Amino acid sequence: MNGNGPTKLVDPLEDPVPGVGTYEDFNTIDWVREKSKDRDRHREITNKSRQSTVALLHSVSDAFSGWLLMLLVGLMSGALAGGIDIAAHWLTDMKGGVCLIGFWFNHEHCCWTSNETTFQERDRCPQWQSWAELITGTSEGAFAYIVNYLMYIFWALLFSFLAVTLVRAFAPYACGSGIPEIKTILSGFIIRGYLGKWTLIIKTITLVLAVSSGLSLGKEGPLVHVACCCANILCHLFTKYRKNEAKRREVLSAAAAVGVSVAFGAPIGGVLFSLEEVSYYFPLKTLWRSFFAALVAAFTLRSINPFGNSRLVLFYVEFHAPWHLVELAPFILLGIFGGLWGALFIRANIAWCRRRKSTRLGHYPVIEVLVVAALTAVLAFPNSYTRMSGAELISELFNDCSLLDSSHNFIYFVFFVFLPVSILADRPAGKGLYTALWQLALALVFKMLITVITFGMKVPSGLFIPSMAIGAIAGRLLGVGMEQLAYYNHDWFIFKGWCSPGADCITPGLYAMVGAAACLGGVTRMTVSLVVIMFELTGGLEYIVPLMAATMTSKWVADAFGREGIYEAHIRLNGYPFLEPKEEFEHSSLTVDVMRPRRSDPALAVLTQEGMTVGEVEALVESTHYSGFPVVVSKESQRLVGFALRRDLLISIDNARKRQEGIVSASQVVFTEHAPSQAPDAPPPLRLRGIMDLSPFTVTDHTPMDITVDIFRKLGLRQCLVTHNGRLLGIITKKDILKHMAQIANRDPDSILFN
Amino acid sequence: MNGNGPTKLVDPLEDPVPGVGTYEDFNTIDWVREKSKDRDRHREITNKSRQSTVALLHSVSDAFSGWLLMLLVGLMSGALAGGIDIAAHWLTDMKGGVCLIGFWFNHEHCCWTSNETTFQERDRCPQWQSWAELITGTSEGAFAYIVNYLMYIFWALLFSFLAVTLVRAFAPYACGSGIPEIKTILSGFIIRGYLGKWTLIIKTITLVLAVSSGLSLGKEGPLVHVACCCANILCHLFTKYRKNEAKRREVLSAAAAVGVSVAFGAPIGGVLFSLEEVSYYFPLKTLWRSFFAALVAAFTLRSINPFGNSRLVLFYVEFHAPWHLVELAPFILLGIFGGLWGALFIRANIAWCRRRKSTRLGHYPVIEVLVVAALTAVLAFPNSYTRMSGAELISELFNDCSLLDSSHNFIYFVFFVFLPVSILADRPAGKGLYTALWQLALALVFKMLITVITFGMKVPSGLFIPSMAIGAIAGRLLGVGMEQLAYYNHDWFIFKGWCSPGADCITPGLYAMVGAAACLGGVTRMTVSLVVIMFELTGGLEYIVPLMAATMTSKWVADAFGREGIYEAHIRLNGYPFLEPKEEFEHSSLTVDVMRPRRSDPALAVLTQEGMTVGEVEALVESTHYSGFPVVVSKESQRLVGFALRRDLLISIDNARKRQEGIVSASQVVFTEHAPSQAPDAPPPLRLRGIMDLSPFTVTDHTPMDITVDIFRKLGLRQCLVTHNGRLLGIITKKDILKHMAQIANRDPDSILFN
Repeated sequence: MNGNGPTKLVDPLEDPVPGVGTYEDFNTIDWVREKSKDRDRHREITNKSRQSTVALLHSVSDAFSGWLLMLLVGLMSGALAGGIDIAAHWLTDMKGGVCLIGFWFNHEHCCWTSNETTFQERDRCPQWQSWAELITGTSEGAFAYIVNYLMYIFWALLFSFLAVTLVRAFAPYACGSGIPEIKTILSGFIIRGYLGKWTLIIKTITLVLAVSSGLSLGKEGPLVHVACCCANILCHLFTKYRKNEAKRREVLSAAAAVGVSVAFGAPIGGVLFSLEEVSYYFPLKTLWRSFFAALVAAFTLRSINPFGNSRLVLFYVEFHAPWHLVELAPFILLGIFGGLWGALFIRANIAWCRRRKSTRLGHYPVIEVLVVAALTAVLAFPNSYTRMSGAELISELFNDCSLLDSSHNFIYFVFFVFLPVSILADRPAGKGLYTALWQLALALVFKMLITVITFGMKVPSGLFIPSMAIGAIAGRLLGVGMEQLAYYNHDWFIFKGWCSPGADCITPGLYAMVGAAACLGGVTRMTVSLVVIMFELTGGLEYIVPLMAATMTSKWVADAFGREGIYEAHIRLNGYPFLEPKEEFEHSSLTVDVMRPRRSDPALAVLTQEGMTVGEVEALVESTHYSGFPVVVSKESQRLVGFALRRDLLISIDNARKRQEGIVSASQVVFTEHAPSQAPDAPPPLRLRGIMDLSPFTVTDHTPMDITVDIFRKLGLRQCLVTHNGRLLGIITKKDILKHMAQIANRDPDSILFN
Repeated sequence: MNGNGPTKLVDPLEDPVPGVGTYEDFNTIDWVREKSKDRDRHREITNKSRQSTVALLHSVSDAFSGWLLMLLVGLMSGALAGGIDIAAHWLTDMKGGVCLIGFWFNHEHCCWTSNETTFQERDRCPQWQSWAELITGTSEGAFAYIVNYLMYIFWALLFSFLAVTLVRAFAPYACGSGIPEIKTILSGFIIRGYLGKWTLIIKTITLVLAVSSGLSLGKEGPLVHVACCCANILCHLFTKYRKNEAKRREVLSAAAAVGVSVAFGAPIGGVLFSLEEVSYYFPLKTLWRSFFAALVAAFTLRSINPFGNSRLVLFYVEFHAPWHLVELAPFILLGIFGGLWGALFIRANIAWCRRRKSTRLGHYPVIEVLVVAALTAVLAFPNSYTRMSGAELISELFNDCSLLDSSHNFIYFVFFVFLPVSILADRPAGKGLYTALWQLALALVFKMLITVITFGMKVPSGLFIPSMAIGAIAGRLLGVGMEQLAYYNHDWFIFKGWCSPGADCITPGLYAMVGAAACLGGVTRMTVSLVVIMFELTGGLEYIVPLMAATMTSKWVADAFGREGIYEAHIRLNGYPFLEPKEEFEHSSLTVDVMRPRRSDPALAVLTQEGMTVGEVEALVESTHYSGFPVVVSKESQRLVGFALRRDLLISIDNARKRQEGIVSASQVVFTEHAPSQAPDAPPPLRLRGIMDLSPFTVTDHTPMDITVDIFRKLGLRQCLVTHNGRLLGIITKKDILKHMAQIANRDPDSILFN
């Protein structure tokens, strides 16, 4: 026993060499080291605060900097979300026409001054002119229709071209939804620039363009990325967060909550989303702070009032009709549909993305986007349900009495474009419903197909809205079906007692909402957060039960085909080192089976605590690619002393060679506390105890892998040393574990690309 | 390297000896071992399920047993909560009078058949007679008042006597709120019988009695205990949960959510309460299941409909008036009040409880309860605000226009009991408000004092309602003050612009709610869950901001005086080994400073993997009190092999002596894989590798304590071995850490009683 107290600092390298303790790009951080660093920093500030008033003030400001940062993140994200909403609204309307008072007004704003009172009429105020009116002077007839059609395609192509070009030119990280990468980053991975200012600027602009182009994508997922960018940039204002990767990830977790909060106007749901779906390390302090930030963001957005109705989202809805227990059957049916769709979508999308990666398709992202945008525009315009934006569609489907109101204007191109459109305007109302139904059915098929190829293109693209739209259409269809069934068969035993003839006993809007939740659940495998987000959209506790039944069914059904959600699937596709915190490791292997070196490998590369020269160490580092090296007492005993990281070793030796006198290749490298006695003519030793981790994690070779995986997950380790009866035997890294898991699941272990 | 694969089972003890792997009462469980055991079990079921249909069905039923259990817990807890509500309502009313149609009706039910229509009148229907009416024939005059008064005291004494006697006679664990103990149990402690059937039965009955007796306590905290008892009892139906302490704790975490869900009608708040306040290990699966159980319970309670208004709680409220930014100042003031009250209450209550423990006061719990009940009844009756139950009081204070309606009936005893009550009935309305105000002020002082001595008595007693009541009174007082201020000074610059003369610009009910949240927050230090519970009570997102401002202030203010909430303070008072997961360990000690043996202690008691006899092992175990012993290669090398628990050692040796032939004191104890060669006449060796933990956790002596504490918390360890350069140096247990923390905080380290 050597009771020598803290020995970390008995070292000439007391001032840390710049760079020691930082990480390279595409590497995993060491959570334990980062958190320990932060505690050291905090301790220092606390100790100093007792000495002077200035230091005390510094300590107080340090304590509150987290809250201030949260406030700023909330304000900035809320403002950006408001801006994106307004801009997207305006550009989307521009595809249909232009405001004569000023082109910067959107359709609704343009018509506010109009005298017509009914909503339907106000929609066609004289100040707003469709492109056909503007160009041909009339809005009737086949020619006008074709002009509008062409203009719609033109704008769609222009917007999507701008979006993809900007992304490619300035910020390649701005594409996609960003959630898979954010999950990976939050789990402790470094992707430099992914949350930088260029990504933020370009993502904000191109998100507006992509949404407006009419592609089958939403802005909700990317808003999480935008909020995380804001948080990351604002972190640079505070040393505490700038310098510590773990602390910064706490802020990013909160920012993810902020993103969902502004996307759905659901602060509580946002916090739960961050907790359930994206975060890795989520202490209670973060819970409370994310809630604060999510609220600030929601209220900022509300004060911007992008939709002019003091609601945070387009598809807020209030139901008043109760639901009956019998209806649980169709709700569960919707859950099954959602689960099946989720499983199918993930497979199809991943297959498509893999194809894009492996074939020549991946070399022409701009052309791909343009082709998909053209296809979307050509097919979407004739059907009023696909022509409107996803959020508008969802809002209509959630609402109770809008299905017929809006569907008697346009009909599906393929069948009717060459007929005079006007003759269809006064068809009987009974027929109207059927038209609406098959339009919806076509919209469903179209959305399903186009979403598969859209998600993953090189433009910002969220999945929430397309998934919800698909579910909402399916739900609405089922709801209308149920309504008809109840209407014509209200004396059936299942309707008897709660559905009197003529009464409005089925709420198709609720079915749409349940369907939306089911599909979103199937695709993302969210559970609590999804139900709470939906609950915050409706505001009625009693609708939780249908939502819950559908979400639960959907998750079970989807899980039966594969346990990964779309985000995990994309993480795996990209080969990021992500250790899923949700799933249990169920295999019975032992750590000795997974660690390196394997039996056929050369022996483990180790450093000895004394006796090696600078040259030998350099040669060892050069000849291997490991990220770190265990330090042992001697090669014979293999008793473990500590662990030194490759990067720290290289930087320190490099620095010593430049700055420290007498350090040459023959100098001894010493990791012990006291330098060993040397020959008098030997060069001075290089003491590197300061960069060695004196508390490396170890497990025994007999530790079952499930426990080892648990340790890696819970402590956020990067590597762990393996011992047998006190002797160092090997090393196990996160990558080894992931490769082992891939092997068990019959996947290619080399698909794990990063450390 | 010895690539010998899994070796755990190469042992004659393949069938585990009964008792090995279980725990003694008042001991800490090993989370890692329990979870690993469950994974083994799950693996076995999965493997078997491929063999036959029966096994497959078993596997499916096993997978769904968790959900079934949750459903049962929800149903049972919801039903019990409904029963408690109804019974408490009835008994509380009985203190005032009796229903002539049938004594089992409460006041409201009794008057349902009455013809009078207004609520005020219906309250005095002829079927319901106060005790004075029944006995003296009249309800007017001082004599009737005194009769009612005496009957009120009589019932209060009777109920509290019954409550305390039942608790003492049948289930001593039924007293208190139960939350501190549940927190400790969830963190991995064993208290046998704390969640047993007797505790459940007695707690349910005595909770009703205690609440009805008028003592200053609530049923909300104990409902968490009741729900946990239900869960624990229902766990016995499923092997998966009966046999595994870790799995059972997952269910208990969900049950805590259920308890709050039925107590406040707030399922989401309940889940967050469990997550934030009571749970220790809360995986996402539990989140989802608790949400399900909380919902089931809420809907069960709603279908029982205990309050006859389809609300789950008495004090549900809907505000419609908006609040103004200026009002944040009084809200923050309420937060400061709440924080101060919280800090003060914790100190006073802990001092009082310590006094009870250390003086003769603790020997007479029945007399104590009777005295406090008498005191409460005598002082509470004359003031209408204290006479009603806590929940009713809160409901009145939260509501917008009931302050004057209900206060013109009774006046404070000390001043007016000897005056004819009737002459005060028709005083001017302006005076009425002032009377109400000072009655409220007196009620505030009374509640504050009586709650301090009530919480901790030997009856079931929750803190939520009294704390909320105190805050609600303070808030209401401030709200009325603000209202008057705005009324008389609506041209002040702070009121200008948003408070026109005559308009109702201040909502005193909102102030009451904010005050309630602030005081509850100060006492319990809840944050998110508190805000969400309150949000679910009001249903309006916009009131979150005032609630949040007050809760945040309250927490900060209270934390400035001590970081412990009331539950943590009671845990510490009882000496339970609870490692607070929220607080960071900020001290700079190293593990070597905390581990045992200290420098002056005798060397660490270790077993060697071979060479010790049964007699020597028994002697070592007898001569020490440690819960476990490290196994090393040899005393000289001190290289660690594994860890054996005292209980397992004793049971195994005992079992071997009885059942295994030839095991005597001279038999060698062998922990190695292969028995060493022995003299031919030596007794057969006792092989104990099966009970040895081959993967004990180790840290190095240089590991900073903050990291060690983190490891203990995150992995739920009971002990960890300490090594230096690969050699075993010592051991560190949860108790050592807690003692060290107590020492740093200048507390008595011997106050940690259990392992």
